[in-house]
Amino acid sequence: DFLNALLEVVPAFGASTDDLERCRLNGMVDCGNRHEHIYQRALLLVEQVKVSKGSPLVTCLLEGPSGSGKTALAATVGIDSDFPYVKIVSAETMIGLHEATKCAHIVKVFEDAYKSPLSIIILDDIERLLEYVAIGPRFSNLISQTLMVLLKRLPPKGKKLLVIGTTSEVSFLDSVGLCDSFSVTYHVPTLRTEDAKKVLTQLNVFANEDIDAAAEALNDMPIKKLYMLIEMAAQGEAGGSAEAIYSGNEKIKIGHFYDCLQDVVRY
Amino acid sequence: DFLNALLEVVPAFGASTDDLERCRLNGMVDCGNRHEHIYQRALLLVEQVKVSKGSPLVTCLLEGPSGSGKTALAATVGIDSDFPYVKIVSAETMIGLHEATKCAHIVKVFEDAYKSPLSIIILDDIERLLEYVAIGPRFSNLISQTLMVLLKRLPPKGKKLLVIGTTSEVSFLDSVGLCDSFSVTYHVPTLRTEDAKKVLTQLNVFANEDIDAAAEALNDMPIKKLYMLIEMAAQGEAGGSAEAIYSGNEKIKIGHFYDCLQDVVRY
Amino acid sequence: DFLNALLEVVPAFGASTDDLERCRLNGMVDCGNRHEHIYQRALLLVEQVKVSKGSPLVTCLLEGPSGSGKTALAATVGIDSDFPYVKIVSAETMIGLHEATKCAHIVKVFEDAYKSPLSIIILDDIERLLEYVAIGPRFSNLISQTLMVLLKRLPPKGKKLLVIGTTSEVSFLDSVGLCDSFSVTYHVPTLRTEDAKKVLTQLNVFANEDIDAAAEALNDMPIKKLYMLIEMAAQGEAGGSAEAIYSGNEKIKIGHFYDCLQDVVRY
Amino acid sequence: DFLNALLEVVPAFGASTDDLERCRLNGMVDCGNRHEHIYQRALLLVEQVKVSKGSPLVTCLLEGPSGSGKTALAATVGIDSDFPYVKIVSAETMIGLHEATKCAHIVKVFEDAYKSPLSIIILDDIERLLEYVAIGPRFSNLISQTLMVLLKRLPPKGKKLLVIGTTSEVSFLDSVGLCDSFSVTYHVPTLRTEDAKKVLTQLNVFANEDIDAAAEALNDMPIKKLYMLIEMAAQGEAGGSAEAIYSGNEKIKIGHFYDCLQDVVRY
Amino acid sequence: DFLNALLEVVPAFGASTDDLERCRLNGMVDCGNRHEHIYQRALLLVEQVKVSKGSPLVTCLLEGPSGSGKTALAATVGIDSDFPYVKIVSAETMIGLHEATKCAHIVKVFEDAYKSPLSIIILDDIERLLEYVAIGPRFSNLISQTLMVLLKRLPPKGKKLLVIGTTSEVSFLDSVGLCDSFSVTYHVPTLRTEDAKKVLTQLNVFANEDIDAAAEALNDMPIKKLYMLIEMAAQGEAGGSAEAIYSGNEKIKIGHFYDCLQDVVRY
Amino acid sequence: DFLNALLEVVPAFGASTDDLERCRLNGMVDCGNRHEHIYQRALLLVEQVKVSKGSPLVTCLLEGPSGSGKTALAATVGIDSDFPYVKIVSAETMIGLHEATKCAHIVKVFEDAYKSPLSIIILDDIERLLEYVAIGPRFSNLISQTLMVLLKRLPPKGKKLLVIGTTSEVSFLDSVGLCDSFSVTYHVPTLRTEDAKKVLTQLNVFANEDIDAAAEALNDMPIKKLYMLIEMAAQGEAGGSAEAIYSGNEKIKIGHFYDCLQDVVRY
Ligand SMILES: Nc1ncnc2c1ncn2[C@@H]1O[C@H](COP(=O)(O)OP(=O)(O)OP(=O)(O)O)[C@@H](O)[C@H]1O
Ligand SMILES: Nc1ncnc2c1ncn2[C@@H]1O[C@H](COP(=O)(O)OP(=O)(O)OP(=O)(O)O)[C@@H](O)[C@H]1O
Ligand SMILES: Nc1ncnc2c1ncn2[C@@H]1O[C@H](COP(=O)(O)OP(=O)(O)OP(=O)(O)O)[C@@H](O)[C@H]1O
Ligand SMILES: Nc1ncnc2c1ncn2[C@@H]1O[C@H](COP(=O)(O)OP(=O)(O)OP(=O)(O)O)[C@@H](O)[C@H]1O
Ligand SMILES: Nc1ncnc2c1ncn2[C@@H]1O[C@H](COP(=O)(O)OP(=O)(O)OP(=O)(O)O)[C@@H](O)[C@H]1O
Ligand SMILES: Nc1ncnc2c1ncn2[C@@H]1O[C@H](COP(=O)(O)OP(=O)(O)OP(=O)(O)O)[C@@H](O)[C@H]1O
Ligand SMILES: [Mg+2]
Ligand SMILES: [Mg+2]
Ligand SMILES: [Mg+2]
Ligand SMILES: [Mg+2]
Ligand SMILES: [Mg+2]
Ligand SMILES: [Mg+2]
Repeated sequence: DFLNALLEVVPAFGASTDDLERCRLNGMVDCGNRHEHIYQRALLLVEQVKVSKGSPLVTCLLEGPSGSGKTALAATVGIDSDFPYVKIVSAETMIGLHEATKCAHIVKVFEDAYKSPLSIIILDDIERLLEYVAIGPRFSNLISQTLMVLLKRLPPKGKKLLVIGTTSEVSFLDSVGLCDSFSVTYHVPTLRTEDAKKVLTQLNVFANEDIDAAAEALNDMPIKKLYMLIEMAAQGEAGGSAEAIYSGNEKIKIGHFYDCLQDVVRY
Repeated sequence: DFLNALLEVVPAFGASTDDLERCRLNGMVDCGNRHEHIYQRALLLVEQVKVSKGSPLVTCLLEGPSGSGKTALAATVGIDSDFPYVKIVSAETMIGLHEATKCAHIVKVFEDAYKSPLSIIILDDIERLLEYVAIGPRFSNLISQTLMVLLKRLPPKGKKLLVIGTTSEVSFLDSVGLCDSFSVTYHVPTLRTEDAKKVLTQLNVFANEDIDAAAEALNDMPIKKLYMLIEMAAQGEAGGSAEAIYSGNEKIKIGHFYDCLQDVVRY
Repeated sequence: DFLNALLEVVPAFGASTDDLERCRLNGMVDCGNRHEHIYQRALLLVEQVKVSKGSPLVTCLLEGPSGSGKTALAATVGIDSDFPYVKIVSAETMIGLHEATKCAHIVKVFEDAYKSPLSIIILDDIERLLEYVAIGPRFSNLISQTLMVLLKRLPPKGKKLLVIGTTSEVSFLDSVGLCDSFSVTYHVPTLRTEDAKKVLTQLNVFANEDIDAAAEALNDMPIKKLYMLIEMAAQGEAGGSAEAIYSGNEKIKIGHFYDCLQDVVRY
Repeated sequence: DFLNALLEVVPAFGASTDDLERCRLNGMVDCGNRHEHIYQRALLLVEQVKVSKGSPLVTCLLEGPSGSGKTALAATVGIDSDFPYVKIVSAETMIGLHEATKCAHIVKVFEDAYKSPLSIIILDDIERLLEYVAIGPRFSNLISQTLMVLLKRLPPKGKKLLVIGTTSEVSFLDSVGLCDSFSVTYHVPTLRTEDAKKVLTQLNVFANEDIDAAAEALNDMPIKKLYMLIEMAAQGEAGGSAEAIYSGNEKIKIGHFYDCLQDVVRY
Repeated sequence: DFLNALLEVVPAFGASTDDLERCRLNGMVDCGNRHEHIYQRALLLVEQVKVSKGSPLVTCLLEGPSGSGKTALAATVGIDSDFPYVKIVSAETMIGLHEATKCAHIVKVFEDAYKSPLSIIILDDIERLLEYVAIGPRFSNLISQTLMVLLKRLPPKGKKLLVIGTTSEVSFLDSVGLCDSFSVTYHVPTLRTEDAKKVLTQLNVFANEDIDAAAEALNDMPIKKLYMLIEMAAQGEAGGSAEAIYSGNEKIKIGHFYDCLQDVVRY
Repeated sequence: DFLNALLEVVPAFGASTDDLERCRLNGMVDCGNRHEHIYQRALLLVEQVKVSKGSPLVTCLLEGPSGSGKTALAATVGIDSDFPYVKIVSAETMIGLHEATKCAHIVKVFEDAYKSPLSIIILDDIERLLEYVAIGPRFSNLISQTLMVLLKRLPPKGKKLLVIGTTSEVSFLDSVGLCDSFSVTYHVPTLRTEDAKKVLTQLNVFANEDIDAAAEALNDMPIKKLYMLIEMAAQGEAGGSAEAIYSGNEKIKIGHFYDCLQDVVRY
């Protein structure tokens, strides 16, 4: 019966709503139209999987520069769907394991998903799952073959599955043929000046007259790096000013902000 | 006796008529002359194997772009033959296995086939069986050597075997010498505008006046991708319209169809 | 005594007259002067080994394009010699074995041969024995080293050995230094128009007036491929005509023959 | 309670205050503004980690030529912070271990750190941890993958961690993608003439009139090499003068100093 | 005492006078000045080892094209010395062994030699001992390192050792640094026309008036290949003439000799 | 107490004064200023290690062409120091060992040295310790990493260590970064004509009037090769003259000397 089925899909290792929440530690702010568009499209895929008869398996790749918000976006889709089985597959829970063991874990997540009528699997940071390094390049072919087969293999009759992958190395994924394994691909971008301005306004740590200058300087920064930079700047030149700034009593000094920007951006 | 012989060829793992049917989940529609021609020729090979004395082993390769319908075609030939032993060898049932184990499984399928008077073996997605990846390139030489020998080795006296391979990486297969191992090779193509129009007409999800425009936009799309695209478009911009469209009450909006086409086609 | 000696040379695995016969499944037809010349020379080597005191080991390589008749030729020499020990070493009986095991098997065949006063060993498809693949290239150096030593090592006093190798990858064999390990090398060619005509006349499946045209179209085809092509053409366009053609009641239609030629020849 | 927690973070192997002190065997002298600036910034990061809510993990890379003072600087930051858990991860305590064992040790250090509310981990000489060698190049991908994941993985709720890496092979680290894994990077430089003069003045082993000439000759020397050079020169041409020089009774002869400089600098 | 010492040097595996004799199966004929010169020089080295105090280890490399007579020459020096320990190290007795085992065998031969006051070790076909293949190139670095150390390591006090190596891949040996490990190197050449004429005269299988023409055609042939060619030619065009020719009753027909030359020489 | 400490440093394998003496089998003659200079500088390093407080570890590399006298020089420094622990690490005592075992042996030597107040370790022929071969190049990264760490790791408090490395492949050592691991590097040269003349005079095997001509011919020869050449020449053209020459009764004939020079020098 249904209760038993639910029990069966208890994850064997890792992910849960809590895990998904940790993926968006700084919460979700409005990052502009392009982020919003991807979110809307992903929700349509969620619905397609739910109602479709002909496509029991839908696969979607979120690619974009490091820190652009891919993982947080995927986690948000997982949380906002009402699917009984949502699991994130991440290298963080498989550090140091042999590639065969990693492979077995990944297969297990899919086998578990096949037991639920509706499932979402997030393959987070696929290049890390593949142990990719640019020199060579080297990567685990065992895992890449496994993913290629899993991304094409239909779930059993009556079961439906949405797979969301994330990567910041899309050209590598392309060169191993993994991009072609996804039905749809969306590019998650860095912040344009206008997007950055929106975000800074929401964070409310700059004096109004500084926001434009700050946003201008941030052009093309990923959202994740922006958070780190704001934190650094909030300490103040001599330290100790963070509390006053987050409580709204003080504002970040634009000069010190520029200094921190130097440290964070690699020249 | 015959009954015993039949028992002996019970597959050791995987494939059966049910497996073959799963290979053409969306059924078979008329995809134009070129698909039809290949199907007819393949049936002639089935007959040649049956009646011939000098060629107890015939081998045929179906190659073509990803999603062009190779697997569905091979499965259909297998179903339409009246051979007592038809088996599909696929990477899907061998995920994560060591190459030596995969190799043993493949050999086992051939050994089983040798016990039946008439057999068909489908080697599906040969590049995946070989664990091929373009970087390097890397692949299992153990399995490629095994296939090369099996594709040349005669079955025992009185037994006959037709092997059908499928691949979307024909130039790789060529470079390892596997193409030369097949007696005949057929190219399974994507859909020309005229073919696409035929298919769309059969699916009956567009308004009559939109079919030409839609087919035009689809030029050179593989049949499998076409099915995915139609499903996406059938959800409608805001979701929820799929049922109405498949029941024939509504038609897909051509504008939304173009939008979905953008997501599916990689630029 | 002699009986015991004979017993001792019973093959440990594989080859026998029956094995040798399976190597020329379609029988031997007259393929023209060049094939004949090689056969005669090979017989002279058989005699040299028998009578010579200074060369207890003679080694001969048959190289030529895939399907040109090398294996059948070597098997025929083995059958036509009156040597008590004739063995074929082939990849077909060693599928999936580890290279060290294959190596041991090969050494065993030589050790067995050393016990017979007069022996022939056929190393069939040496590139396959070496697990050769052009990408890389990759191959088993263990086996190539073993062959190089075995092809130079003298049998014990009083024993004599003729080794016949076959290969369709002569330039690879050359690059690993294996060609130099053979005393003599013969090139087994494809069929010239005049050779093809001879063969077609013997097969008697064409109308007399079509033979010239057919032979012309076949220029440079290997004998093995010719047999496959004839079988395909003999089915007829709609199937079912094979029996009538082989019984001599009907002839192959030259138009259909051209069609089949298209499928078989890779463009 | 707190005492128990403290006990739990007792290091499993290696580092302690004593270990950190051994990292600056020659003590710390004033090496000029650029060294000082980095030290100040690093202390700000220490504070950020302590007070921040949004960035429980801060990572910082010190890169610069061999001997420029990176390790001594990192150790000093560790000593000057008041964090309960400070550990140095160094290849010196893992000589000859298998990469999987090294990997386990590194992970263990992080797991230990996660138990302390505030921790600093120094990854010393990252290229050596990765067993990097320029030929190839070769390195341990297992360890590089592990570091990449550890440098991104958040500590458990309520725990905070500062990771300081050092390397003299920054372009290698960049090519494996490890540079991007650090939030901030500082370049630790060699000594300019003015810096060298400052150091020589503090060491007080030259006659006043020689200091300028000596500093000039030292342009662009790393601080560590400078110490070795001074020691060599202090022996005197015929040996035996070291004690007199360090006690201040004699000064290093500038001519002999130039000679030693030749031996130390590679031409 | 001396008897005991002699017993101790009984070879652990392989070589003996009989083995050495098998290395010159066709006996030794006069091959001209250049062969003679090398033989004389090698004998001088034998004496140097015997009388010298300062060079307890002398090493000498014979290099030259395949079949030029290197092994026979080395064996002859071994036989003609009056050393109590003479051993040949050859790949023939180590077929299929793991490189570590081969390495142990080689070391054992040296350890055995160190027990004899005067020893000769022949390292035959060094490229084969190293499992060399030109593609890659590949070879056993374990064995090459072992040889490099053994060729430099002094025998214990009071023991003396002459090592003679042979190779037909001198440029490979050079590229791994093995040539530099030998104190002296001699090039063993193929036969010039004048040398060939000398040899043919001694063999006495041609009519006097044919010798010049035959020798001319043989220019630059190695002595070993010359023997094989003579044997082939001696069979006669139709076989059966070998006995008559070797007994001196008949002579080889110069026309048939030219034909055989074609088969043996690779174009 | 002190006695116990001394006992503890008994070497676990290999080296002793006897071993060091075997490194200069032909004794030490005056090879000119450049050899002498290096010897003096090395002695200064010995003293620096003894008296210094700031540099408990000093490392010095002797590099130069094969046979130039590096090992003999290092051994002489070891013998002439009055250090209680002097050990040579050489590939000769580790033939055929696995790289991990070699690595353990090397570490053991350092651990033993750390127990002595004053130690010298000679790393002889570092390229051989690393199993270096130019093709590839190949070498043991395990051992190179180990050496890089050992050459930087400080001995325990109160212990002092001088490491002397020798190599004839300095550019290889540089490319793996090992040169940078040494504090000082000296180039040990071949003999200039003037140096060779000095050596020949000391050896006293030429007639006075021949010495200049002989020395001229020897330009740029390493000292080790010079000894081998003299021995060869001393046998005389027909052998047997060695005793007379070494006893001073006869002199080497300059013509025969030139002949031998040809054999020894590679063209
Ligand atoms: N609209 C948003 N979309 C995505 N992330 C957001 C958004 N608003 C705020 N964030 C925050 O920005 C951060 C995005 O980081 P995230 O780890 O998702 O990036 P990423 O692209 O996965 O990075 P990486 O390439 O390193 O994996 C998260 O901390 C998240 O809380
Ligand atoms: N005439 C047809 N021929 C082939 N497939 C058809 C045809 N009509 C409909 N289809 C459907 O199209 C799909 C073809 O997909 P199939 O898996 O066979 O493609 P493929 O070429 O094997 O793809 P891949 O390269 O990914 O292996 C199937 O779902 C099948 O049901
Ligand atoms: N004169 C002939 N010489 C050789 N083969 C012949 C001859 N006449 C007929 N045949 C037939 O032609 C076929 C030759 O195939 P065979 O396997 O010997 O070719 P091959 O060169 O060894 O091919 P491959 O390169 O694939 O190993 C056999 O079936 C044989 O019966
Ligand atoms: N201001 C300073 N900063 C850093 N090091 C200093 C300073 N003053 C003196 N030193 C001394 O200089 C030496 C610096 O060596 P350190 O090992 O830190 O260099 P490194 O850059 O880590 O070298 P490597 O690249 O070899 O790892 C230490 O012995 C330290 O005591
Ligand atoms: N003067 C000679 N020197 C050498 N070999 C001779 C001489 N006279 C006759 N021979 C014969 O010539 C043959 C030389 O072959 P050998 O095996 O020594 O050549 P090789 O150079 O070692 O060949 P490979 O390169 O194949 O090892 C032997 O059979 C030997 O009996
Ligand atoms: N002044 C000298 N310095 C060094 N060696 C000398 C000197 N005088 C005589 N010799 C002799 O010269 C030989 C030098 O050989 P040694 O093995 O030291 O050279 P090497 O450079 O280590 O050679 P390799 O590169 O092969 O290791 C020794 O036999 C030694 O006895
Ligand atoms: Mg992410
Ligand atoms: Mg398919
Ligand atoms: Mg064949
Ligand atoms: Mg450091
Ligand atoms: Mg030889
Ligand atoms: Mg040396």
